[in-house]
Amino acid sequence: MNKRVVLASRPQGWVSEANFRIEEAPIPKPAEGDVLVKNLWLSLDPYMRGRMNDTRSYAAKQEVGEVMVGQTVGEVLESRNPKYKKGDHVLTPFGWQQFGCSDGKGFNRIDASRAPAQAFLGVLGMPGVTAWVGLLDICQPKAGETVVVSAASGAVGSVVGQIAKLKGCRAVGIAGGKEKCDYVANELGFDACVDYKAGRLNEELKAATPNGVDCYFENVGGEIMDAVLRRMNPFSRVAVCGLVSQYNATDPYGVKAIGSILVNRIKVQGFIVSDRPELWAQALPELTAWVAAGKIKYRESITEGLENAPRAFIGLLRGENFGKQLVKL
Amino acid sequence: MNKRVVLASRPQGWVSEANFRIEEAPIPKPAEGDVLVKNLWLSLDPYMRGRMNDTRSYAAKQEVGEVMVGQTVGEVLESRNPKYKKGDHVLTPFGWQQFGCSDGKGFNRIDASRAPAQAFLGVLGMPGVTAWVGLLDICQPKAGETVVVSAASGAVGSVVGQIAKLKGCRAVGIAGGKEKCDYVANELGFDACVDYKAGRLNEELKAATPNGVDCYFENVGGEIMDAVLRRMNPFSRVAVCGLVSQYNATDPYGVKAIGSILVNRIKVQGFIVSDRPELWAQALPELTAWVAAGKIKYRESITEGLENAPRAFIGLLRGENFGKQLVKL
Repeated sequence: MNKRVVLASRPQGWVSEANFRIEEAPIPKPAEGDVLVKNLWLSLDPYMRGRMNDTRSYAAKQEVGEVMVGQTVGEVLESRNPKYKKGDHVLTPFGWQQFGCSDGKGFNRIDASRAPAQAFLGVLGMPGVTAWVGLLDICQPKAGETVVVSAASGAVGSVVGQIAKLKGCRAVGIAGGKEKCDYVANELGFDACVDYKAGRLNEELKAATPNGVDCYFENVGGEIMDAVLRRMNPFSRVAVCGLVSQYNATDPYGVKAIGSILVNRIKVQGFIVSDRPELWAQALPELTAWVAAGKIKYRESITEGLENAPRAFIGLLRGENFGKQLVKL
Repeated sequence: MNKRVVLASRPQGWVSEANFRIEEAPIPKPAEGDVLVKNLWLSLDPYMRGRMNDTRSYAAKQEVGEVMVGQTVGEVLESRNPKYKKGDHVLTPFGWQQFGCSDGKGFNRIDASRAPAQAFLGVLGMPGVTAWVGLLDICQPKAGETVVVSAASGAVGSVVGQIAKLKGCRAVGIAGGKEKCDYVANELGFDACVDYKAGRLNEELKAATPNGVDCYFENVGGEIMDAVLRRMNPFSRVAVCGLVSQYNATDPYGVKAIGSILVNRIKVQGFIVSDRPELWAQALPELTAWVAAGKIKYRESITEGLENAPRAFIGLLRGENFGKQLVKL
């Protein structure tokens, strides 16, 4: 049987496990042209929270009663499609389920000999390329500039700061808790990391950015956005990649430091990596080389078993994960 | 004697007439290389409020006890500088005073035969070029797109909407009061104008922008920014030119619709026209031709007498002016 997680109801405010339902269905049988895939790893990402809402977004919304959207890495069990053969490893859009069957639409073949298969859901996948695009294409940091990234120990943020260091920048992370900050500063090699949970966000951010902030890679929003906007330099850039602090808010935080955008002539650019498919071909080889050379490190939070995916997803939104959140199926 | 207005004290919150002091000083005598100018018109502009604060800004702050900063149009009374002769009309940075004397630094000669001298402080000066740069260089509207501008009857906003129409866009203004909105829609030819004082900002803005908003030229900020952000389309652009609703605020408004920047991948760009001096040579001839052809109309609020400048300036910040605010000296 194919176990799968469907959206049972739309959350009002904080998502809870009651918003999900675990179902079983027969394993699908491939028709002519189809590929049957056994999913090995499921990626959990903050964007999924937005899909659960009944509001306009950049993607079709998740329907109630349907399998939760998401990317997986899987292995081809049976192929009736000449493009794939049994044993191939593929990235799929099959979502939160153990098996999937389709004509291969949205698949990407991966070379599991080059890196662990699940890395293609993280540092060598959407999160890694997101970091590359937001930092290098939108913020365009110059050597010597200061780059700040929030959610700095996460799948995206950890890569942002390490690329910033490779480009000769001062890299400053913002993360929640001493353990994450120690990891960011000591293991990932950022110049500093501010623990926003320590209650001295503005003072510590000021101390960590003595020359102000030239590039801000925003994953969190809320009071952290306000704090960083107040440190921005003239002609600085903000890449708005995520606002995870706001995804479950019924009353969004009001950002007060808008005046800094005017006074400092800041460019604030929202972006989604899938808008720039042409950059993947440039980003992925660079990321792959950096990871192979040990210049980009990464960490994974692995949850075992599909039935635990809802709890892991809620933990991700609360910042309980440490690095890329995966579910091993 | 030379009457002049100096900054008497820095305002805390709303500026009042008590923050200004009127003084008299001898009319300066030009040394070798100097030019003595009789100021005819003083420009009042919202940016002056920012200069009165004791905070970092994009320009040197206004010092207490010094003549208030500002641009004037004047006539050369006496010249000991070969570049200027008696009777020349010049734009000067002499500020809020009746006479000024310098070596000509910051002067721009104007051709008062081409337009009324004071037009070079408005539609053919900094406000007009600001409109041109923010709309055409930053927002880059395409024909058929919807352009929204706040403070739509003002010196900048009125030009923004008229250029938008000339470029084939739908132009929607936001202004305070029925009289201003009627002027914007009926005399300036915008497609619609929303009266934010009528209490139905969100509903009326929605009705006026049935296809959403592609370009927003922001002069006001606060709840108007929130309302427009909620109407923005994917890949839309915001030029942040001013935030006049916030300049006297002791507790700034918190902007809640930041999520729209992410979901719609909006570019929000703060700008100041003086950062782009290279664009004046392109903008001014176009503006001059449009004004000469009657394709861009403008209106002036004229206050008589330098001693009334403080009251007029406070009125400008309250939105009591109608079009370009000038003081006739």
